[in-house]
Amino acid sequence: MKMNPCAAIIGAGRTRFTEHWEEDPKTMIGLAGMKALESVDKGIRRKDIEAGYFGSFLYQVTNKIGLVPGYMSRELGLNVPMINTEAACASGGLALHNACLGIESGRYDAILVAGFEKMSDRQDKIIDDLMFAADPHEFEAGYNFPGLYATMMTRYMYEFGKDDPKCAEALAQISSKNHHHCIKNKYAQFKDKGEISVEDVLNSRMIANPIRILHSSPISDGAVALIMTKPEIAKKYTDTPIYIMSSQEVTDHVSLYTRNKITSVMATRLAVKQALKETGLTIDDIDIAEAHDCFSIEEAFFLEDSGFYGEGEAWKNIHESYESFKGSGHIPYIKNGKELTVNLGGGLKADGHPVGATGIRQPYESFKQLRKEAKENQIDREVNTAMCHNVGGTGGIATVHILARDVQ
Amino acid sequence: MKMNPCAAIIGAGRTRFTEHWEEDPKTMIGLAGMKALESVDKGIRRKDIEAGYFGSFLYQVTNKIGLVPGYMSRELGLNVPMINTEAACASGGLALHNACLGIESGRYDAILVAGFEKMSDRQDKIIDDLMFAADPHEFEAGYNFPGLYATMMTRYMYEFGKDDPKCAEALAQISSKNHHHCIKNKYAQFKDKGEISVEDVLNSRMIANPIRILHSSPISDGAVALIMTKPEIAKKYTDTPIYIMSSQEVTDHVSLYTRNKITSVMATRLAVKQALKETGLTIDDIDIAEAHDCFSIEEAFFLEDSGFYGEGEAWKNIHESYESFKGSGHIPYIKNGKELTVNLGGGLKADGHPVGATGIRQPYESFKQLRKEAKENQIDREVNTAMCHNVGGTGGIATVHILARDVQ
Repeated sequence: MKMNPCAAIIGAGRTRFTEHWEEDPKTMIGLAGMKALESVDKGIRRKDIEAGYFGSFLYQVTNKIGLVPGYMSRELGLNVPMINTEAACASGGLALHNACLGIESGRYDAILVAGFEKMSDRQDKIIDDLMFAADPHEFEAGYNFPGLYATMMTRYMYEFGKDDPKCAEALAQISSKNHHHCIKNKYAQFKDKGEISVEDVLNSRMIANPIRILHSSPISDGAVALIMTKPEIAKKYTDTPIYIMSSQEVTDHVSLYTRNKITSVMATRLAVKQALKETGLTIDDIDIAEAHDCFSIEEAFFLEDSGFYGEGEAWKNIHESYESFKGSGHIPYIKNGKELTVNLGGGLKADGHPVGATGIRQPYESFKQLRKEAKENQIDREVNTAMCHNVGGTGGIATVHILARDVQ
Repeated sequence: MKMNPCAAIIGAGRTRFTEHWEEDPKTMIGLAGMKALESVDKGIRRKDIEAGYFGSFLYQVTNKIGLVPGYMSRELGLNVPMINTEAACASGGLALHNACLGIESGRYDAILVAGFEKMSDRQDKIIDDLMFAADPHEFEAGYNFPGLYATMMTRYMYEFGKDDPKCAEALAQISSKNHHHCIKNKYAQFKDKGEISVEDVLNSRMIANPIRILHSSPISDGAVALIMTKPEIAKKYTDTPIYIMSSQEVTDHVSLYTRNKITSVMATRLAVKQALKETGLTIDDIDIAEAHDCFSIEEAFFLEDSGFYGEGEAWKNIHESYESFKGSGHIPYIKNGKELTVNLGGGLKADGHPVGATGIRQPYESFKQLRKEAKENQIDREVNTAMCHNVGGTGGIATVHILARDVQ
């Protein structure tokens, strides 16, 4: 791996993801931020934070707030530069990417990066609000987000799964696996739900054929924060910083109907390719990944778009992996003996999906796993590299980050 | 001046600011962006653009769009990184600041930076939407934005103007001056309105005592775009790049009721101070400025917060300057013979205020003036340095940029 990290993560904190009816964004960000600050081994003070980067999607309509920099200035008691970015479900990933550029600019030693979303209060209208992440014509045509992903999933099954029932099973196994992974994650929205079987998924309520409720990530509230520094000073703060080896963002058409292909997310393909190129790694060098499973089909896309499995071949391999490893602590995806474990804390499906928080929750989970601090949910093999994959809309944007503990 | 610009502007384009009922954001950004690309003297192609930075405030509620990066990817036919920032009325200034950090990161040679807002369609509701830029408690207390600025203006007049009618006259002269400046600006919303006298302002409809309609910037639609490069390669594209010598952002409490002082904007004070320090300039070295006159009192604050006039002394000097120069091509502010000309194209008041576009319109105007390309509206004295000042909310954020033509 090339030794040129763009930034280092030295602390991380989060709230539980759930329906936080009593909370507002600032208390959630405050809690996550405080935990992140306190988690820095050798100490850091609030006043050492030189800039704030925030990501959120629907804060204006859900919480009637804007101007997040001013909103957070008061809460943090800081007059430092703060930048808020919105990129639908990739708002967190984009905030992280933008924060990496901030570190690369050389202006800051230490910064706070946070993602948040407070959605519960608007459960009745949010299905329409979420369509801001699509093209207005798609909204006017009657689509909602499950419908858009159902279109992608239908085409995938038609093109690659044919009539093999294992294809539908594999896409249900993704959900089962992610629920299984969340049970020991104390912050996960569905940790108390216990195991969700493949049959549970396949018999759950139909939302937009063939997508059922248990293929879908939930409406959630939550915030996650990271403390980041320039890589060269990270060891001042902790002996075990986690380095961001590459931070990539790629954009693509916001609309499904103008893309050449809907069984793949080109933004993911390009972003992964750029990240691997920058680090000199191949996808087989990645030990663990946080993939954007807003609907389970999107995790299957990630496995193909990242190159781990060939085009149209994820479902067979998912099925084989699941059957081989079900009942294990974590259920990896396998390829010629190589293991890639995805969504260790439950992913968007089971950990929860407070939209803007997700892209920061992913490096939070990777940070904990790479530092062996995931407690009961710690992966039981040695892992050193992680990939975080955050998608906005149906693929109008993808961010990909590669994280590593040991870099030589 | 220290020779370490953070970025260079090599091209600039804009739409007229007005009520563009027939347009949508992407056509307006497209037009501004195309003009910006075509304005680059030695040529640049769309495909040379390596990243896009956008700023807008209310696009979700006014246009039912989100995920601007994906939205613009399709329009531009580019899969490059794009970052959208929202900071209320400073969304454009924050996009510019963020773009400077992007250039400083070293990742990009050439980038597109654009601000836009499409407000007309929602004129009936936008007075409430704009309150996203304040604290929710202020909204619940019955405030709207004219009301918040009326509170600041009342206090300023009470504290410094006492009963001198010249104070109220001075705050009206700011509007008259800005309308006067816009008449030869072909893109200005009110270019055809002709002169607006001080009496017109003082007799115009009361909005929120003491703020009248002619103290207030309008509801507007429009977009502005810049093409920016690393400073060291700028001359590849033009013999007369305009350099950004300092890019500063400062945040402060979003709420008026928690600030120590409401007759001054601390975020402006700190941002100007940092920008002057970085460039080794004093405020007296600045030739022209684009100040954030959302309400005319805010231009008076700028004159004090920037240090050009002392605390509480702007109104007397505004009055004296106006009386000395009324009828001139441009009406400068004077101090011991030194001239500072503010809002050469009419400012927010008369050029218009499509919120997210304003912070990019300011460097557009400065770029044209510093390059002597402002045609009939070109200032009639030699100018080399410009300051652009963009405020969000009542001062929860301020961005300050110093631009210069000749740097040694």
